[in-house]
Amino acid sequence: MTFTIGIIGAGRIGQLHVENLSALPFVRVKSVSDIKVDHLQDWAARYQVEELTTDYHLLLQDPEIQAIFICTPTSTHAGIIKEVALSKKDIFCEKPVSFSVKETKEALEVVSKTGVKLQVGFNRRFDPDFIKLRQVVEDGGIGIPHLLKITSRDPAPPSIDYIINSGGLFMDMMIHDFDMARFMIGSEVKTVSAVGAVLIDPKIGEVGDIDTAIVTLTFANGAIGVIDNSRQAIYGYDQRVEVLGSEGMAHVENNRPSTIEISTKDRVVKDNPLYFFIERYKDAYIEEVKEFVNLCVMGKKNICDGNDGLQAELIAKAAKESLDKGHPVHLDLYESHSK
Amino acid sequence: MTFTIGIIGAGRIGQLHVENLSALPFVRVKSVSDIKVDHLQDWAARYQVEELTTDYHLLLQDPEIQAIFICTPTSTHAGIIKEVALSKKDIFCEKPVSFSVKETKEALEVVSKTGVKLQVGFNRRFDPDFIKLRQVVEDGGIGIPHLLKITSRDPAPPSIDYIINSGGLFMDMMIHDFDMARFMIGSEVKTVSAVGAVLIDPKIGEVGDIDTAIVTLTFANGAIGVIDNSRQAIYGYDQRVEVLGSEGMAHVENNRPSTIEISTKDRVVKDNPLYFFIERYKDAYIEEVKEFVNLCVMGKKNICDGNDGLQAELIAKAAKESLDKGHPVHLDLYESHSK
Amino acid sequence: MTFTIGIIGAGRIGQLHVENLSALPFVRVKSVSDIKVDHLQDWAARYQVEELTTDYHLLLQDPEIQAIFICTPTSTHAGIIKEVALSKKDIFCEKPVSFSVKETKEALEVVSKTGVKLQVGFNRRFDPDFIKLRQVVEDGGIGIPHLLKITSRDPAPPSIDYIINSGGLFMDMMIHDFDMARFMIGSEVKTVSAVGAVLIDPKIGEVGDIDTAIVTLTFANGAIGVIDNSRQAIYGYDQRVEVLGSEGMAHVENNRPSTIEISTKDRVVKDNPLYFFIERYKDAYIEEVKEFVNLCVMGKKNICDGNDGLQAELIAKAAKESLDKGHPVHLDLYESHSK
Amino acid sequence: MTFTIGIIGAGRIGQLHVENLSALPFVRVKSVSDIKVDHLQDWAARYQVEELTTDYHLLLQDPEIQAIFICTPTSTHAGIIKEVALSKKDIFCEKPVSFSVKETKEALEVVSKTGVKLQVGFNRRFDPDFIKLRQVVEDGGIGIPHLLKITSRDPAPPSIDYIINSGGLFMDMMIHDFDMARFMIGSEVKTVSAVGAVLIDPKIGEVGDIDTAIVTLTFANGAIGVIDNSRQAIYGYDQRVEVLGSEGMAHVENNRPSTIEISTKDRVVKDNPLYFFIERYKDAYIEEVKEFVNLCVMGKKNICDGNDGLQAELIAKAAKESLDKGHPVHLDLYESHSK
Repeated sequence: MTFTIGIIGAGRIGQLHVENLSALPFVRVKSVSDIKVDHLQDWAARYQVEELTTDYHLLLQDPEIQAIFICTPTSTHAGIIKEVALSKKDIFCEKPVSFSVKETKEALEVVSKTGVKLQVGFNRRFDPDFIKLRQVVEDGGIGIPHLLKITSRDPAPPSIDYIINSGGLFMDMMIHDFDMARFMIGSEVKTVSAVGAVLIDPKIGEVGDIDTAIVTLTFANGAIGVIDNSRQAIYGYDQRVEVLGSEGMAHVENNRPSTIEISTKDRVVKDNPLYFFIERYKDAYIEEVKEFVNLCVMGKKNICDGNDGLQAELIAKAAKESLDKGHPVHLDLYESHSK
Repeated sequence: MTFTIGIIGAGRIGQLHVENLSALPFVRVKSVSDIKVDHLQDWAARYQVEELTTDYHLLLQDPEIQAIFICTPTSTHAGIIKEVALSKKDIFCEKPVSFSVKETKEALEVVSKTGVKLQVGFNRRFDPDFIKLRQVVEDGGIGIPHLLKITSRDPAPPSIDYIINSGGLFMDMMIHDFDMARFMIGSEVKTVSAVGAVLIDPKIGEVGDIDTAIVTLTFANGAIGVIDNSRQAIYGYDQRVEVLGSEGMAHVENNRPSTIEISTKDRVVKDNPLYFFIERYKDAYIEEVKEFVNLCVMGKKNICDGNDGLQAELIAKAAKESLDKGHPVHLDLYESHSK
Repeated sequence: MTFTIGIIGAGRIGQLHVENLSALPFVRVKSVSDIKVDHLQDWAARYQVEELTTDYHLLLQDPEIQAIFICTPTSTHAGIIKEVALSKKDIFCEKPVSFSVKETKEALEVVSKTGVKLQVGFNRRFDPDFIKLRQVVEDGGIGIPHLLKITSRDPAPPSIDYIINSGGLFMDMMIHDFDMARFMIGSEVKTVSAVGAVLIDPKIGEVGDIDTAIVTLTFANGAIGVIDNSRQAIYGYDQRVEVLGSEGMAHVENNRPSTIEISTKDRVVKDNPLYFFIERYKDAYIEEVKEFVNLCVMGKKNICDGNDGLQAELIAKAAKESLDKGHPVHLDLYESHSK
Repeated sequence: MTFTIGIIGAGRIGQLHVENLSALPFVRVKSVSDIKVDHLQDWAARYQVEELTTDYHLLLQDPEIQAIFICTPTSTHAGIIKEVALSKKDIFCEKPVSFSVKETKEALEVVSKTGVKLQVGFNRRFDPDFIKLRQVVEDGGIGIPHLLKITSRDPAPPSIDYIINSGGLFMDMMIHDFDMARFMIGSEVKTVSAVGAVLIDPKIGEVGDIDTAIVTLTFANGAIGVIDNSRQAIYGYDQRVEVLGSEGMAHVENNRPSTIEISTKDRVVKDNPLYFFIERYKDAYIEEVKEFVNLCVMGKKNICDGNDGLQAELIAKAAKESLDKGHPVHLDLYESHSK
């Protein structure tokens, strides 16, 4: 019994998935495609990848390959999803599904018609801390949820080139938090209200984006929430979630490389948070691909499906509109509106 | 050398001020007035209060009394401030100065003309934790401030009677946080955007108030901020402040009755936060009256003056308007607007 | 109703007691004696002390004075205790009762015969953290106590002059921890085993003392324990206690001036522990004199009596003998032995 | 380039090593031997073990196998070490090397003569927290080390059968802490002084062992230290180390499964420490085998060699003698003594 996988896109995240998949028993990463593959020979050998190609269609035509990971730039996701779905292979697609709600919906329709499985790469749903927090909330450990607080800050801004193609802070960065908000509260977002600022690098403003933002949410179940994002938390990747409920409050803190504390004449020093997502979500990335295999092979529950991808995009679009227009945006009106 | 004080209003907070003042060397609390005083005989003896009266005008006429504490219901503050100012005594007034920006302005004008000193009772400015945090921010310890986060939750909602006369959540409760925001960032608030909900007790909604709220702020210096309030954090008084800046982040956590941790079979248990403001701000209340004495007797800096009172009220009004109208409110437009 | 007190010895700790007593309602510190008193005029006025004298016998003869605080050098304690007891006044005596078990026993006999009350100044028994920890242990919150760990380190060594007259590290410093050990476990010490070193200042060794020590204890109830002391924890006063039991573990941590944490590029910084005993045990010193007043006036339980003073001295003597002889010392044998 | 390994002993720890080795690129676990192997077929397939045998001599004779892991009961270690050394294969041996200082010395002599490499399985030296702590101490981050404190407690006692064959608490459990003490202080132990008790299970006493112990150490460099052990910390595996130095103090705390904190009406709850060594030292076990491969293949430094194994045994023996005789034991005298 072997589960055979192909990977489209071998950038940082594509490689990470290959490495994590290669450590799973019974999983075979047969083929990897990218625009260039010559530099990947040693890496492929190390992780027993059998085939490198610049033509991802070969993967779609390979009858041995049962599932495809889409790790290409976002602008190509929706198109490839449709092709893969039509080739009847299961799909793992990196977030966001696309920059366009319309394209995402079309892709999801093809997925739905062909009946293949689709898992979207919101890796934080697979983090042990957040899973535990969600469990407490779901089990009523803090009563009925009233107020959600998500702090999510990167250690350093990406390049301006990256930002130009990122879809903007809401679609590129806060989209993770929009998904976390839905996951944690277990209810849909009703309204979105955003403030944003360019405080870290004026060039980010020049290309039409922001680098610091606070977004307020209201949920269908009555709860309210707030997300704050910064492209630069100089002390490291800041990832905290807190839920206040009628019977208590639960929260998770940053993970640190060690528990060391050093007390000297003037101060007590401890470690900064883990530097960035690769370090912080190391285990989540492993769990994410394990769960995808479980979904495809054992028919387990889909923890992050296409609709989850779509909803996060809708909220991100609404946040951008709220920022641009200076008023809150209602998601239900918004959808017809944005068509 | 003695500094002689009179107290108008001997409810919980008035009594607390007397007790704290009585422990200061060289301070004499000569007279206390309230609507009823018979039940206060023993208490007055214990703290060497010499005179109890139901007519606060006696205090204004007493040439020995150099300063007056106004601890009556808010609706009476502005009127009494004017009377005290005209009697040429220095004033400590509990927050808020009034429920009406117009009344507050009129009272401040009288204060200004008479040249008496006025300190407003935003006690949190005198808390050692927040002072230390402000010091770090002011000294550039975290660079230029980008993002402020204030969490401020009461352990239990007050009675519906209290809420009816409170001026509403923004004017009664979050007004402390509006003041903290200005104090911590050292810049004026430009825009206010509020969401609110009735999640704890429907009766609070029935009397036209909310019990849970998130307010987003933008500041003149470019920073942005968010405050969350709940009338019921069942685990105790939750008072946290965090500032993210260009060079780092600083925050203060809740104070707990002890550092004890108990590890048993299923969990590690530590103490809840201190229960409510009397416990949490015990030292701040002492410092507040010390600083008032320093202000009056030694001419030290006014740490919380009439304008601080006014600005917090303006923000509270704007927050209410934002909640009611469903869009952000610009404070500069707002003032002319609200006249 | 007033409780009238005289103070013998107005050094740092004597003054602290006066200041704390002066804040209690119904307590009158009438007289203070010391070898020199001229420099104390302003201080005495500030705290309403009515009489300053260089002859403490005047206090013993004053029929108004109901209780005496003995805050003189240790070598004089036992003699003064006897005089005060014969004058039929209640006694608060600083620790240790004396440097000599024989003298202590003689003093306690006079106390016993005259029936006056005697409270010994082991201030840590009155610290809210340690009280809470003891409560958990006493209530069976961690089952049957198995293992006690006390860490107790001063921020900086005292002068060599002080050390010469201190009675040595065990009698001067660790005696607090010996008392804490008995208090926390609620059982008598059976055996004592010490290692010690001169690591901080060779001059401390030259005058026959040590500056760093670890002492292992066994208790009558079967539990075992360990105390570590250092004369120099450069990061501040380190005061931690931990008890492991059959059903769990409980511990208290250091107290810090604030909860602030500052996260910058390289590290997260928090406050050092409170600097020394005056800061750390501020509340304990207040509680200690309150409880003494409660003991004398209201007949409440004696939380730290003469026998507690004696037992701590016995353990300190045994620790010194263990260090000198290089083997464990049995306390029951020891007493007859040391007569 | 492949490094080929054979494993002798496939109990819990042997299996763990195979699983960790199988995830390393270029490492091949060719053969595993144990007394019984039938039940291991599936497990072996899963981790690509090619050969299962009940005769470990086959591994010694296999020219492909370059290194051997000895994971058998301790009583067999020394004998197998000699055999493996004579077969010219490198050796990883679980702790302790043997129960007999004499046997250990003989085995080390053969290792020395044959020139093979020997790494002893003190896994804690490879834990990221302890490595960081050691680095701080070694780099002078806390000045000259004065005092070491190790707390090391198991969540639950092993079976009586296990205890009977364990070599006793000092040789089986505290031996890890003796090694940690030498590693952390970077100096040899001079004297050992032990107290011990049977507090958890009287049966442990009946078979001549103890379940709770405190051992005091003095080091050649002048530092002093203390280790406490309990066979039952009901709240989980308690693994803490602290070093006080002339310029500060550094310590590491327990690792927890998550950072979650849940605040409810009566208390704040956080996770217990990770349950036991498999969970707590998961990463250390991986690093340990990586470093062994680095040692054998790339000639890197031996982080835990045969002498480290020997020294820990000597201290364990001395601790037992100290407990039995009731006085401290000097290690240098001890060695000749114990021959």
